[in-house]
Amino acid sequence: MQLLRLINQFGPLSRADLIRISGLSKGAVSMVTADLMARGLIENRDTVHGGGRPSIRLGIAADSAFFLGISLADRPVMVLSDLHGTILERHDITLPDRVEDIGPHVRDLMARVAPGGSVPARRMRGIGLAVSGLVDDGAGVCVRSTLTGWENVPLGPLITQACEVPAYVENDANALTVAQYRFGPMRETASFSLVSVGRGIGCGHMVGGELFRGFRGGAGEIAHATAEPDGLPCQCGKKGCLDTVASLTAIAHLAARAGLPGDLDELEQIAARGDLRAVELLHRAGSALGLMIAAMVQIMDPRHVLVARQGGELAGVYGRAMRQVAEGNFLPQLAPRPEIITCDVTADAWAFGAVSVAADRSLFREF
Amino acid sequence: MQLLRLINQFGPLSRADLIRISGLSKGAVSMVTADLMARGLIENRDTVHGGGRPSIRLGIAADSAFFLGISLADRPVMVLSDLHGTILERHDITLPDRVEDIGPHVRDLMARVAPGGSVPARRMRGIGLAVSGLVDDGAGVCVRSTLTGWENVPLGPLITQACEVPAYVENDANALTVAQYRFGPMRETASFSLVSVGRGIGCGHMVGGELFRGFRGGAGEIAHATAEPDGLPCQCGKKGCLDTVASLTAIAHLAARAGLPGDLDELEQIAARGDLRAVELLHRAGSALGLMIAAMVQIMDPRHVLVARQGGELAGVYGRAMRQVAEGNFLPQLAPRPEIITCDVTADAWAFGAVSVAADRSLFREF
Repeated sequence: MQLLRLINQFGPLSRADLIRISGLSKGAVSMVTADLMARGLIENRDTVHGGGRPSIRLGIAADSAFFLGISLADRPVMVLSDLHGTILERHDITLPDRVEDIGPHVRDLMARVAPGGSVPARRMRGIGLAVSGLVDDGAGVCVRSTLTGWENVPLGPLITQACEVPAYVENDANALTVAQYRFGPMRETASFSLVSVGRGIGCGHMVGGELFRGFRGGAGEIAHATAEPDGLPCQCGKKGCLDTVASLTAIAHLAARAGLPGDLDELEQIAARGDLRAVELLHRAGSALGLMIAAMVQIMDPRHVLVARQGGELAGVYGRAMRQVAEGNFLPQLAPRPEIITCDVTADAWAFGAVSVAADRSLFREF
Repeated sequence: MQLLRLINQFGPLSRADLIRISGLSKGAVSMVTADLMARGLIENRDTVHGGGRPSIRLGIAADSAFFLGISLADRPVMVLSDLHGTILERHDITLPDRVEDIGPHVRDLMARVAPGGSVPARRMRGIGLAVSGLVDDGAGVCVRSTLTGWENVPLGPLITQACEVPAYVENDANALTVAQYRFGPMRETASFSLVSVGRGIGCGHMVGGELFRGFRGGAGEIAHATAEPDGLPCQCGKKGCLDTVASLTAIAHLAARAGLPGDLDELEQIAARGDLRAVELLHRAGSALGLMIAAMVQIMDPRHVLVARQGGELAGVYGRAMRQVAEGNFLPQLAPRPEIITCDVTADAWAFGAVSVAADRSLFREF
């Protein structure tokens, strides 16, 4: 029925709105909203006085469900969120080295917030984990992660068992993509591709409101698509991967070799003052990303492309080169052309992505 | 229910096979197969004597449904096929210049085979059209085709009305993709990407048994993804599109400039005798295609990639460079890696694609 999903997506809605948008009968909408109300997931929000009878609009009850999100993508972070997607707490965390200690460790982390903490245990509806690498989302298994060295680690079952709360595992870029759709700027756009620019390059595809994972869960691995044939060596073993040119790590590395500061914003400032080495370096990075985005658009035809930089704007040479090269390499006849939207995400975005995955799978996909 | 689909896909099947594969109840399978039998779409094929009771296997009744397929992709061709996908007739055709004459013209073409011809009118189940360019498959509209100059031409409705047989319009590369899945070597593989090498480069994606079209129907437009930044000018207005390097037209053009014969197979022979200009040209073309295939694999993670050359093998320098560069640019950790399968399709393959689309939409997607 997914009325909860519609209310989350389009804001407070009256029953008449829900009938119109969902195409369900009046009776079905009454029944489902009564059920959601009984579960405490929605609440009466306000009364709208229009042409006919005044109607009550239904909204998501923020404190009806809570989620833990744990990011293993960059430095480990844990966040607690309510059903509005509002982050209530955040904690820097460490994770044990031994896989078998992870479950009990997460149980201890959860105890900081629930049940001894601020959240009643029965409202803790899910734990999300965002990990870099290949994930079997159905089984909750981290199939392969270069960052942690894990192979076939059943993270989901281990944590579900230890915490007695369902745990969901997702690739970090996919988790970030879900967050943009469920709680972010793409809330009303069911089809878009996300490209994240951080220490590495990440990518996820939302197609008709569902993550597009590819056959092995490997869709969106553009970090290791070749941007510069015979380019710089990559830790994956290949040469010239997009990650070796366009990631913040690559930029810092190339800048250091040129005797420049490694921080993107500092580099942009130096470039703005006319330093051609900085301009060239940023142009090379942005162009490589732009060309890859253009190829992605030709291959998949997403409605829009959201480029999310971690910790800052994409306003300088890097962002302009990216946009110009991307837009210059779309098929001109493709109309209306996909829009390239840039946004800034925090370092906690990955953990928030994990929260979104937990909310998505435990509630939004069901109700 | 789609039992017809299963019987087409996996060959003659007993009712017990259908229960096992479909997950339907015995009663449902009995009812649906009785219905398909009454419609004449399936027939008793043979009796299998196994451990228990002998069981009758059901097969597709080839002459229960016929389809016309018209290709406007290359030179116009019309084929007639039965429900086995066997081509019974083929005709070179011409099409009128004026859009409003297309309907009556196709009606006259149809009269060659039905009802005055070999096929009873009521068994003519669909007409498929494969056109290059952007298609609105639902409405049957050719949104934009550079080859014909059409913009928003409602081909489907025009032909349906004139012929009194449902007409279906599809992009040519997508039609070829459907043909490989319904009647070709990918019959048992519901997730693959097809790349066609002909006068131009085409591409279609099959994902879980459905064409993946992208938001505007533009997915698979790799012909105009940039293979060589600042490369040769393309008729689309950009530079360095894959079409300007890797298509048979591009190869012929580049060969002529080098004083070499333009035919791919002749070029391969010359290369095999050690002509380095031919080797270089073929290597450049194959490598460009291989690199694009690798990017596509990283972006979409298809199960397999089928590279279909029109009118010949891909065994020489072109095919080897394509395969080597593609496989060398996948993420090494992606396992099991997608297989690159090459195949040879005839010049009639596009018209056969059109037939497949008609069979797919009129029958296989329904029954």
